[in-house]
Amino acid sequence: MPAPYVHRLRVRYGECDPQGVVFNAHYLAYFDIALTELWRESLGGYRSMTDSGVDMVVAEAGVRYRASAGFDDELAISVAVSHLGNTSLGTAIEIRRDALLVVEGEMRHVFVALATRTKCSIPEAVRQGLEAYAP
Amino acid sequence: MPAPYVHRLRVRYGECDPQGVVFNAHYLAYFDIALTELWRESLGGYRSMTDSGVDMVVAEAGVRYRASAGFDDELAISVAVSHLGNTSLGTAIEIRRDALLVVEGEMRHVFVALATRTKCSIPEAVRQGLEAYAP
Amino acid sequence: MPAPYVHRLRVRYGECDPQGVVFNAHYLAYFDIALTELWRESLGGYRSMTDSGVDMVVAEAGVRYRASAGFDDELAISVAVSHLGNTSLGTAIEIRRDALLVVEGEMRHVFVALATRTKCSIPEAVRQGLEAYAP
Amino acid sequence: MPAPYVHRLRVRYGECDPQGVVFNAHYLAYFDIALTELWRESLGGYRSMTDSGVDMVVAEAGVRYRASAGFDDELAISVAVSHLGNTSLGTAIEIRRDALLVVEGEMRHVFVALATRTKCSIPEAVRQGLEAYAP
Repeated sequence: MPAPYVHRLRVRYGECDPQGVVFNAHYLAYFDIALTELWRESLGGYRSMTDSGVDMVVAEAGVRYRASAGFDDELAISVAVSHLGNTSLGTAIEIRRDALLVVEGEMRHVFVALATRTKCSIPEAVRQGLEAYAP
Repeated sequence: MPAPYVHRLRVRYGECDPQGVVFNAHYLAYFDIALTELWRESLGGYRSMTDSGVDMVVAEAGVRYRASAGFDDELAISVAVSHLGNTSLGTAIEIRRDALLVVEGEMRHVFVALATRTKCSIPEAVRQGLEAYAP
Repeated sequence: MPAPYVHRLRVRYGECDPQGVVFNAHYLAYFDIALTELWRESLGGYRSMTDSGVDMVVAEAGVRYRASAGFDDELAISVAVSHLGNTSLGTAIEIRRDALLVVEGEMRHVFVALATRTKCSIPEAVRQGLEAYAP
Repeated sequence: MPAPYVHRLRVRYGECDPQGVVFNAHYLAYFDIALTELWRESLGGYRSMTDSGVDMVVAEAGVRYRASAGFDDELAISVAVSHLGNTSLGTAIEIRRDALLVVEGEMRHVFVALATRTKCSIPEAVRQGLEAYAP
């Protein structure tokens, strides 16, 4: 198994709710941020893909909340590529605070042609960039 | 099957992203808003529960994105109670724009004693209020 | 003085921070929501303006925080038109919980042609719709 | 004049709106993030202040939007201390993308005792930490 891509971020005050922990919806935003950084690492940035006329849309997401994180905590978001299909990408994501697993989940994205908003094949450059993180 | 609880809201401009559609993470926030309104309808408000020393935390969430919604769209969020356990609640949620299914998903919440942050039984008043939306 | 336009909304759980009150940045989003509703009331909706090729951008905003609001509070956002220039609009906004003034502020928007993103005159229909809320 | 404190961040996709630019309310959240980082730099973190029984609340904020920023842009947020009163702090904030001024604004915070939520003097350690950024 290759090592997952890891992105680190700090929890912002405005992302925490009256329970003093990250509001549950923000973890999906964290997933999205880590994917953007994976694109930068493996492809030189998300725009290089959209500039070539291809975009991604989210088809499915799942989140399991294992522990809580709070203001100013530094989180490590690891992303592994679990599926590289013809038109779709599956990712498995884990968020940890030090050794503690805070959240785990998965996303499925579908690639679309920007011009028509219809499904298209994963561009070859994207596929090659992501293969380094796939089993 | 009893009718689900339905809450309506309008998509806000700041909730939409450069693709012109609701950013995916916000749908989990919509789920949360609809649950708050279900609590108001069935129990007179969320605070009546926390005032009695009981709170809920999210354990799990799933979202499937079927179509997109955009700025100023009016959405109907329907919530059905799919599971009423001893300490946990399962909900099934659908978001529609008119007849179009935009998003469907589910959440699992666990009840906790506010004082100790440990699992506790669903308060009897909450159970009775939610049973009207359970099969 | 004409009566201001008033829009009501409920504070969402995810909008409140660990202090238990609305996170300060969200009040600017509330201002934006109230303006959208003012457009609906006076012009039949924001899209009728953008469909005609004109949009608005925010040039300036000010907020004074007088009291706090928390989860599930119902707020009344009142908007008065303080300035209707050739290309710019000034609004004065107050947010109240019952009689209590929570936040007051103001915004200045500039009208732009969608095609060129350059300043343009306020469309006549918009001007007429807004004049009902101007002194 | 001492050099302002500078914090860098990248614009997130979910922070941009259908105009393709950062939604105006998020700039106030950016101000807040930069202040948190200033606290880390000058005081070892915000929690060291709240642990000592003192917190801050926002009293006033102003924002002037000079240019737009979009997805994945790297922004430099500079914070200067413009006023260090007995119980209140004034900051002047500028956000730049490379040389371009995107947003400028100011905030006024008031210090409060956590126990009573009433105004209190700026703790001596905080004052000393912030003086390095004051004229």
